[in-house]
Amino acid sequence: MVSTKRSDQKAPTDLSQVYLFAEAHKAFAGDRAQMRERLGGKGTGLSEMTSAGVSVPPGMTILTDCCRQYYENGEKVPAGLYNEVWTKLKVIESDLDRKLGDVDKPLLLSVRSGAKFSMPGMMDTILNLGLNDKTVDGLAKATANPRFAWDSYRRFIQMYSNVVLDVSKDNFERVIDTFKGEIKVKEDVQMTAEHLQELVKRFKKFVKEKVNREFPQDTSEQLKGAVEAVFRSWNTPRAIYYRNLNKIDHNLGTAVNIQAMVFGNMDNTSATGVCFTRNPATGEKMLYGEYLVNAQGEDVVAGVRTPKKISEMAQEMPKVYEELLATTTRLETHYRDIQDCEFTVERGKLYMLQTRTGKRTAAAAVKGAVEMANEGIISRPEALDRVEPIQLNQLLLPSFDAADKVKAKEEGRLLATGLNASPGAAIGAMVFCPDEAEKLAADGKKVILIRIETCPDDIHGIVPSQGVVTSRGGMTSHAAVVARGMGKPCVAGCEAFKIDLEAETVVAAGKTFKKGDVISIDGSTGEIFAGAINRLEPKLGSEFRTLLSWADEVRRLGIRANADTPEDAKLARDFGAQGIGLCRTEHMFMSQDRLPVVQAMIMSETLEERKQALAKLLPMQREDFKGILKAMQGLPVTIRLLDPPLHEFLPKLEDLIEQVATLKAKGQKGAELTKAEMLLQTVRQLHESNPMMGLRGCRLGLLFPEISEMQVQAIFEAAIALKKEGITVLPEIMIPLIGHVNELKVARTQLEAVAKQVMEAEKVTVDYKFGTMIEIPRAALTADEVAEYAEFFSFGTNDLTQMTFGYSRDDAEGKFLQRYLDGVDCLGHKEKILKQNPFEVLDRDGVGKLMKMAVELGLKTRPDLKLGICGEHGGEPSSIAFAHEIGLSYVSCSPYRVPLARLAAAQATVASVEHDR
Amino acid sequence: MVSTKRSDQKAPTDLSQVYLFAEAHKAFAGDRAQMRERLGGKGTGLSEMTSAGVSVPPGMTILTDCCRQYYENGEKVPAGLYNEVWTKLKVIESDLDRKLGDVDKPLLLSVRSGAKFSMPGMMDTILNLGLNDKTVDGLAKATANPRFAWDSYRRFIQMYSNVVLDVSKDNFERVIDTFKGEIKVKEDVQMTAEHLQELVKRFKKFVKEKVNREFPQDTSEQLKGAVEAVFRSWNTPRAIYYRNLNKIDHNLGTAVNIQAMVFGNMDNTSATGVCFTRNPATGEKMLYGEYLVNAQGEDVVAGVRTPKKISEMAQEMPKVYEELLATTTRLETHYRDIQDCEFTVERGKLYMLQTRTGKRTAAAAVKGAVEMANEGIISRPEALDRVEPIQLNQLLLPSFDAADKVKAKEEGRLLATGLNASPGAAIGAMVFCPDEAEKLAADGKKVILIRIETCPDDIHGIVPSQGVVTSRGGMTSHAAVVARGMGKPCVAGCEAFKIDLEAETVVAAGKTFKKGDVISIDGSTGEIFAGAINRLEPKLGSEFRTLLSWADEVRRLGIRANADTPEDAKLARDFGAQGIGLCRTEHMFMSQDRLPVVQAMIMSETLEERKQALAKLLPMQREDFKGILKAMQGLPVTIRLLDPPLHEFLPKLEDLIEQVATLKAKGQKGAELTKAEMLLQTVRQLHESNPMMGLRGCRLGLLFPEISEMQVQAIFEAAIALKKEGITVLPEIMIPLIGHVNELKVARTQLEAVAKQVMEAEKVTVDYKFGTMIEIPRAALTADEVAEYAEFFSFGTNDLTQMTFGYSRDDAEGKFLQRYLDGVDCLGHKEKILKQNPFEVLDRDGVGKLMKMAVELGLKTRPDLKLGICGEHGGEPSSIAFAHEIGLSYVSCSPYRVPLARLAAAQATVASVEHDR
Repeated sequence: MVSTKRSDQKAPTDLSQVYLFAEAHKAFAGDRAQMRERLGGKGTGLSEMTSAGVSVPPGMTILTDCCRQYYENGEKVPAGLYNEVWTKLKVIESDLDRKLGDVDKPLLLSVRSGAKFSMPGMMDTILNLGLNDKTVDGLAKATANPRFAWDSYRRFIQMYSNVVLDVSKDNFERVIDTFKGEIKVKEDVQMTAEHLQELVKRFKKFVKEKVNREFPQDTSEQLKGAVEAVFRSWNTPRAIYYRNLNKIDHNLGTAVNIQAMVFGNMDNTSATGVCFTRNPATGEKMLYGEYLVNAQGEDVVAGVRTPKKISEMAQEMPKVYEELLATTTRLETHYRDIQDCEFTVERGKLYMLQTRTGKRTAAAAVKGAVEMANEGIISRPEALDRVEPIQLNQLLLPSFDAADKVKAKEEGRLLATGLNASPGAAIGAMVFCPDEAEKLAADGKKVILIRIETCPDDIHGIVPSQGVVTSRGGMTSHAAVVARGMGKPCVAGCEAFKIDLEAETVVAAGKTFKKGDVISIDGSTGEIFAGAINRLEPKLGSEFRTLLSWADEVRRLGIRANADTPEDAKLARDFGAQGIGLCRTEHMFMSQDRLPVVQAMIMSETLEERKQALAKLLPMQREDFKGILKAMQGLPVTIRLLDPPLHEFLPKLEDLIEQVATLKAKGQKGAELTKAEMLLQTVRQLHESNPMMGLRGCRLGLLFPEISEMQVQAIFEAAIALKKEGITVLPEIMIPLIGHVNELKVARTQLEAVAKQVMEAEKVTVDYKFGTMIEIPRAALTADEVAEYAEFFSFGTNDLTQMTFGYSRDDAEGKFLQRYLDGVDCLGHKEKILKQNPFEVLDRDGVGKLMKMAVELGLKTRPDLKLGICGEHGGEPSSIAFAHEIGLSYVSCSPYRVPLARLAAAQATVASVEHDR
Repeated sequence: MVSTKRSDQKAPTDLSQVYLFAEAHKAFAGDRAQMRERLGGKGTGLSEMTSAGVSVPPGMTILTDCCRQYYENGEKVPAGLYNEVWTKLKVIESDLDRKLGDVDKPLLLSVRSGAKFSMPGMMDTILNLGLNDKTVDGLAKATANPRFAWDSYRRFIQMYSNVVLDVSKDNFERVIDTFKGEIKVKEDVQMTAEHLQELVKRFKKFVKEKVNREFPQDTSEQLKGAVEAVFRSWNTPRAIYYRNLNKIDHNLGTAVNIQAMVFGNMDNTSATGVCFTRNPATGEKMLYGEYLVNAQGEDVVAGVRTPKKISEMAQEMPKVYEELLATTTRLETHYRDIQDCEFTVERGKLYMLQTRTGKRTAAAAVKGAVEMANEGIISRPEALDRVEPIQLNQLLLPSFDAADKVKAKEEGRLLATGLNASPGAAIGAMVFCPDEAEKLAADGKKVILIRIETCPDDIHGIVPSQGVVTSRGGMTSHAAVVARGMGKPCVAGCEAFKIDLEAETVVAAGKTFKKGDVISIDGSTGEIFAGAINRLEPKLGSEFRTLLSWADEVRRLGIRANADTPEDAKLARDFGAQGIGLCRTEHMFMSQDRLPVVQAMIMSETLEERKQALAKLLPMQREDFKGILKAMQGLPVTIRLLDPPLHEFLPKLEDLIEQVATLKAKGQKGAELTKAEMLLQTVRQLHESNPMMGLRGCRLGLLFPEISEMQVQAIFEAAIALKKEGITVLPEIMIPLIGHVNELKVARTQLEAVAKQVMEAEKVTVDYKFGTMIEIPRAALTADEVAEYAEFFSFGTNDLTQMTFGYSRDDAEGKFLQRYLDGVDCLGHKEKILKQNPFEVLDRDGVGKLMKMAVELGLKTRPDLKLGICGEHGGEPSSIAFAHEIGLSYVSCSPYRVPLARLAAAQATVASVEHDR
């Protein structure tokens, strides 16, 4: 029905607000960034396809600028907009020899949103616009298909009333059902043209009752209403929610695409469908998708009829299939990426309605990229850029089947959402007591430990559990840190999960759950579900390894891992880590057999007592370090000396106060009370009002040198024992929390003396380094001084972010950070304070500025200074890019993030090379 | 006896270790800084006097370098040192025609310490060196005074044995007493030459018994022993303690001055004395001092005989007096400062033995400086430089009589020393309960409140008390902050003061004290005494005002005060403050009548409830601001919006846990338990693991805008009411704890809207400013952005220091900061980590670097940005100098520190002008 005669492709000379598909590509001189920004993704695709000669129904795009102005003007369209629309419309009308509202040759339009970033299904679309009581007849005549014309009209009334006039869809479904009852018909398709004509009458009557005016017959008014409805749909709650979720800027606005309709529902030589150029789940090269004969786009999605596989089209419509294959292959080659296309066949003629980069699974992204590079469609650096590093997590962790999660949500099984403290998917029966978790797990039961919060005493219950849920504590709470360290899923600080430890019950989503009830927790999203959700096991294809090997060829940044155990170290090495960037030693102190010794060490009243306790810890630490150094043989291992405040190894002050008060009030006397009181006294002495900024890190080692001396002795004894076995070891001793060069000077002097003593006694020399964390702002500010005594800097960006922002992470995330990210009230509207959580994405303007200073100052003193990151930012792509930009030597991240980091580092190199060009 | 013939003043060509007085001045080309550094203060004075032609017994100085080398060499004198000493000694011997150890013409020497900074009485001195069994006869003959010779010898043995051979002084006193008993003599002077000869015999025998060898007869050995003893005395515990107290570098070392003896005890034409060129207590111009006829220096100090006033000398020895007056006046003019001189008259001839800048009281320093400027001896800028700003505190606070404190210490009445949290001297009876403090004070009793720590609920007990003592909490603890705000003496965190609140007793210094016992607390030193210490009331002379007016003429920095009440504001104004730099609003919330309303506001469950509580606070706040703005009319008043975390206004979590646990354990039910549990729940919700970095400052105002809106409404209503009365008001609204520009943007937008609303409603405009604290490192790092929305920056250097160092002040001061200042162990010796407490003296290298960045970035965005400091550093001289250097507009400090700040700001200007020359 639609001819594809083209309008003159003259470039607009003034600053237009509206562009024909046929002119936009030229007008923007092919500047894709500009085009996407202002035409939106869909408009850009349509314009590019048009100018590339692909068969696309003609149309125009209203720029995203207009949407922004619409909101700035208090929801009024910019002046002159419609004049431009009418002008462009004339070109389309003349091309097609049809006219909007013309009784004989009516032009029908689709009006669709299209933002810079795809927001599938979040905004509104209107089809068949231009139908009214008169044009419906014109359409019937022109197509010689009155049923089709009336069906299109009733669909239009439904859609327009819903989107523009705000009448709920359900109402219309009720009208249809009533009517079908009256005429005793079950399926829509059984309705005749006359039935549909009657239905249109009823729809119009119903709309009039609802909105108190006639359904608009004026087609210009119809178009205006549709354009503004699309603008408004930018700010529906679901669209805002989606943007928040996907970190899309709320100020971008949407474009509006007005396009001549083509009809896949005109007859049996017509069809509509969607297809991918490669399988989006696996990346396999094939035309992948679905289509429906004699149907409109929405029918494919609606699920009323079951669509056919696209491969069947080869038999059913061989010519069209050939053309589709050729066109989509051409589009993939043109866009050099997997395409997701919408098409319609109108009476045997193929029209492309949309093409965009296909959303795909991580596996598909990897396979597609590698194969496209091998096919010569893209270069290897481009292949690296095709995969979102963050997606790789999907490949490395068990995950829940997304479809099953949707189903569970529909069934009301989503109980609560807490902090996504440690990624992964776990299913198990709830237990409330660590001892019981241990016992049940020993019997082969899969359990999830539920606690208000966890403490070192609970470790034995965490280890055998599938995952952990806490109702209190943030991303650095004990549970979160320990779980991440173990690669165990954890949902933390989930306040909506109301835990009663005594009753061993949880109240959530209005229901009560008890011990033994099975739940599923998604540590990547923080969701907790009742019952089991299907899990997908990770599969690592050979393409994955190929892609990472390409990344390794390109990247400048080294990648290390944060690992505290030989198991983690081995895993990290398997994933390609080039060393350990952070081996924390505090977790070694927390295992059940050691905690009593550590506590005795802390409770020591004399140096002698403390040294005795330390002497017991020495052989254990030596074995710890032997295991890790051996697992990493030939690669450097950065070992951080004890960092947390000592009270973290003791029971909580609040619990002790409660215990002592209870014992006293009960009039109890004797050993139990005395012991509790003594413990309380110690904990009180160690208690700090702001422990984050108290006696910890190197401050501990300077006040109690015997602790770090024991650790260094253990490191060197381990290294020497391995060296005697012929194993190459490269220990790097890292002193935490340096704020003043003298701290490092004294600590290093003391500890290097111990190292030398051990080496002299054993007559073996070890290749070692001494260095420091840069995690206190002052250390960064005086990095030139600090570098005098440090052979390496490792940026502890977690703490550095805390101090630079003055945010205690545990407090901030629960109390105000989310509000800062969501937006706070400002004269009645919401204003975001922060665009991103600085604990997730490194804050370049503040924290990054300090890091840059530290790098420059440090290198001035010591040109061969090694520089790394060991905060959680070391595993976050944009932070890794920043690390590359400021010239760090390596980033260190959790073992599971190593592949991601390898890829992100390669992307950063590619980007900087392009930038330098 | 000693001739003053001079040796050749040839400059030493090589790097000598020893200089004759006569050659040093020339050798160092008069470079005083170098001279003081290497010759010490005493050596410099002696050399300068010698070269100026003042009558000084000849001598030499061993450089401080030798003392440092002595310690570096493991307590061995540097090679070649004694060769140089013997060479120089020959020159002296030839000048005086006497020889060390010569039987006929013995030369006697004094050997004295003399460091760069005066450490009076802390190190050792030896007189009469060179006497032995033979030379004593030579001396007797030469002076025709055998008694004098033997008396000198026995003094020498006593002193030398004590200092060099380490035999306690008391032993000799016992020998003397025994001997006097035998010969039935009461006074020393009654002993004849023969008695003294016998005493020498006994002394020598006693020494031999003690040290197992003969008292050294070899005079070279005597001299070597004395030199090394002086070196050793640099590191006696009392010397180290003194240096710690006075922040003197332990690495400076002492010089040794070897000088020919002159004798004030030769006959009645001989004398010895000390004098000041002006009265060191008042500054009055007069020769002020004491002397003794026929005595040696130590007799004046020892207090055995009562010395005469120097004015009596005018009668007794008119010629000598004339000469002394002329010489000291000449010295004062030469040194252009008050001189403290030691002199000896030997048979009518005056010798000057030392001159140094006279230690004086603040009053004397001020009067002396102003008068010397008026006399034309010094310029006005020099007069400003003559007064230590920190001394001015003495003039503005009641203080304890130093002599009476010494006496009290001797009597064992010093009970404990805590943190000097708030200066001043208070005397009162101990009370342990705020209610009782209030009651007793109402009855006219003077009380001191004793608490483990204080909280807002205790305010009514703090206000009427003379002072406060706490056994827990640091310099920013509630007690400390509140007391400083009130100018009330406070000793905080005094752990040695073991308080039992239930028994109402204190155990300290091994004794138990009970309620009602009178104590004296010195908030400037942290000392607590039993009983009352005499107090000196401050007197402000006209010279004081003159000096400050000179300071005002010179200084570039503005001076403001931190004041929260109209009374403080008035006081600050009287002291010369040019505005309020910090008016904290949280203390206004803590008074007894308001706390319940504030607590209701915090406990509100709905916005409505909270607004109701705020509506009650509004009129109170309005009156607060009216009072302050009125007191400061015509001057700017910077009002900081509510800053502390809300839980500071509620009972403590720990106390509530204890209370609830106790009630529960006792099986109690009902209203009391319910109320406590509800309160506990709220406090738990507000509880933060690191409140310093939690929900406070602007974060509060952004989450609960109604609180800051109420405050701004109150400010503008107050301003308008006053303006209607014809009073000029200049409020400046300060938003605390900004870390990101968006915080300020939103807060200012919101609050300026309130301001405009109030002004429009009242149809009065007020001249106001909006600005922010710079106290979060990130704010400093992004100051260019922050300045877009800030008309002024006020550096909150307390918090900025906390975050930049990562020190929680409350925790650090108790747990590790003191150790950092005292020195930590490093391979067996102590190493200082920090030279100064960064909370007292601004850390230029770290915090200062951030401030400098912030100033530069801020001015780039807004060239007329006002810049100030409102942390405690605003009242500390070297920090004020830094504020001047980096170009701040003003500093703000507590009212009592305003005069100090005016002077320090002037000194900074003078110094920078000199520097620029």
